Amino acid sequence: MTSAALASSLEPTVESDFKFSDGEDLALDAGGYLPAPTIRYAVYGNPDLLATNAVLVCHALSGSARVGDWWPGLFGDGRPLDLSRVAVVCSNIIGSCYGSTGPASLNPATGAPYAESFPVVTIGDMVRAQRRLADHLGVQSWKAVVGASIGGMQVLQWAIDDPDRVKAAVVIGASPLPALGLAFNHIQRLAIDVSRHSPDPAAGLALARAVATCTYKSAELFDNRYGRAPNRSGEDPLDSIEARFDVAGYLDHQGAVFVDRFDANSYRTITKAMDTFDVDVPKVGRSRVGSRILLVGISSDWLFPPAAVHSLATELIKAGVAAEYVELRSDHGHDGFLVEDSQLVSLVKGFLDG
Amino acid sequence: MTSAALASSLEPTVESDFKFSDGEDLALDAGGYLPAPTIRYAVYGNPDLLATNAVLVCHALSGSARVGDWWPGLFGDGRPLDLSRVAVVCSNIIGSCYGSTGPASLNPATGAPYAESFPVVTIGDMVRAQRRLADHLGVQSWKAVVGASIGGMQVLQWAIDDPDRVKAAVVIGASPLPALGLAFNHIQRLAIDVSRHSPDPAAGLALARAVATCTYKSAELFDNRYGRAPNRSGEDPLDSIEARFDVAGYLDHQGAVFVDRFDANSYRTITKAMDTFDVDVPKVGRSRVGSRILLVGISSDWLFPPAAVHSLATELIKAGVAAEYVELRSDHGHDGFLVEDSQLVSLVKGFLDG
Repeated sequence: MTSAALASSLEPTVESDFKFSDGEDLALDAGGYLPAPTIRYAVYGNPDLLATNAVLVCHALSGSARVGDWWPGLFGDGRPLDLSRVAVVCSNIIGSCYGSTGPASLNPATGAPYAESFPVVTIGDMVRAQRRLADHLGVQSWKAVVGASIGGMQVLQWAIDDPDRVKAAVVIGASPLPALGLAFNHIQRLAIDVSRHSPDPAAGLALARAVATCTYKSAELFDNRYGRAPNRSGEDPLDSIEARFDVAGYLDHQGAVFVDRFDANSYRTITKAMDTFDVDVPKVGRSRVGSRILLVGISSDWLFPPAAVHSLATELIKAGVAAEYVELRSDHGHDGFLVEDSQLVSLVKGFLDG
Repeated sequence: MTSAALASSLEPTVESDFKFSDGEDLALDAGGYLPAPTIRYAVYGNPDLLATNAVLVCHALSGSARVGDWWPGLFGDGRPLDLSRVAVVCSNIIGSCYGSTGPASLNPATGAPYAESFPVVTIGDMVRAQRRLADHLGVQSWKAVVGASIGGMQVLQWAIDDPDRVKAAVVIGASPLPALGLAFNHIQRLAIDVSRHSPDPAAGLALARAVATCTYKSAELFDNRYGRAPNRSGEDPLDSIEARFDVAGYLDHQGAVFVDRFDANSYRTITKAMDTFDVDVPKVGRSRVGSRILLVGISSDWLFPPAAVHSLATELIKAGVAAEYVELRSDHGHDGFLVEDSQLVSLVKGFLDG
């Protein structure tokens, strides 16, 4: 599809949602390949800007291509995603359940969903699929690639694998996952596994989401928001072992809404990709990565502690990369990137204009 | 049993293990009662010292009355539990599965184990059961009551409920549980629940233990000990979604050994007691608690953060209690109390001698 064809179906500033497959198999880092994956993607703004002023946003674990839905604060006049100046592309990662090929997709070899047989995919595989999309859209070079969490991993992977195509990279709350993060991802997959053959197999995904929610927030936020209050439904925690405090009611709610919108095998696949992401700093040094990279730590993030993001920035700088580190002040934990709009706008805008 | 009767069956410095029931029902804070509970307990040292120099040690979630097994570093010449100077008592908490009445015990009303029908018990109930043991042993007043984690909650409860019987109280890594701790306890009980009717019901308790293990350690310890290394069995994390990093292998091992030694319903019962523990500071002020109280925060503890322990100490001091706060330096997290023997010996000894 040419940008002219896109333009005919688009109003500027209105999101459009497409699927794309070039029919080619995708070789995977772990071996084997994914047969002719489909990539679902969205374009925001004037597609005529794709050739010269395209920004790629990479989404996090449970995100979708519709970045306008989940990161609206970055859009607008004078903001990093100002659609009078840039066209914004976001694509659903392979392995997800929001339109790109994932475990819930049909395996062409069997005609049945991949489900548990979906192969291990990496952040590198996700980015390789995105490169095909860039080719398809006629994007020679991204003005910027921006993402947080697993999205930030993709941004780093882009800058490392294809630095000529990335002018500026913004990595928020991301680094190779420290050991405690590996531990909690393992626990979340175990939660899915232990309930798989129980009368309520979805309970494990809800439990995984509850665990994840703890890692996305901060202890301080939980103390301020829930403290030791009984659940707002009126439960008295002394009444029974099941009777809850407020924070437990909140986590149960997060789990319940999540199982209605996410696939357990996608969850296993994507957390695995998160685990295996790493940065080969000596290789980065040798490949003379020329992209400017901004790494943003989030002050209260304990899943990707700011010290880990800072340490990665320091290593990249030592390897000759034009990297910078800044810290977002937030008591929201890892999820700070979804909350602290004005700080984030200012940090990212300053970097992109700099 | 008189101390003379105990003496006849004991060598000084040798642990002895008893069961006790006075046949009286135990009224419970949550309502109802526990019929004639049995208390399993151990006495270390010369029972003749019980009347004048008795120290009570309170154990944590998965501990037993055999404090010599799990806290050996506190025993010995010149240490807080110097058996030439004190007799040491430790009793298994009600609700546990190490000899005192708990969910695995037979309910006299049905002749079957209580299992899930075991009532909600509180830290206050546990301490009330311990008071009967003190009466039975002829202990008018404890020279010291010492405990960490849920053990520390019991120590506080003793000092608040019966300050005339507690000369000195040592509370390590304990406070009312902050919201993130309530969250993780809820998650652990959910883990047990979601696997209850699966083909492998023990898997939920193993998962709960894996979650708990994360909260007992520190991110720093995990980074130093496991980092991002593949599991030492030789697994390659890229091979499959199940293939593990080292930290995941460690957590699985912790889960596997735990299910062989602990009862899932005891786990639910005791974590619930941990949740509902709170300190009514104004009441403490009114009841003129005269016990000297040492509160020890553990620097890398994120289950009971040192700031929470410090804050409790400050409130108690404001309420007129002779409380002090000190910090144990450790990168082991909450479990620091089981690791930092020499620091702990020095802190506790200094306080008890002071």
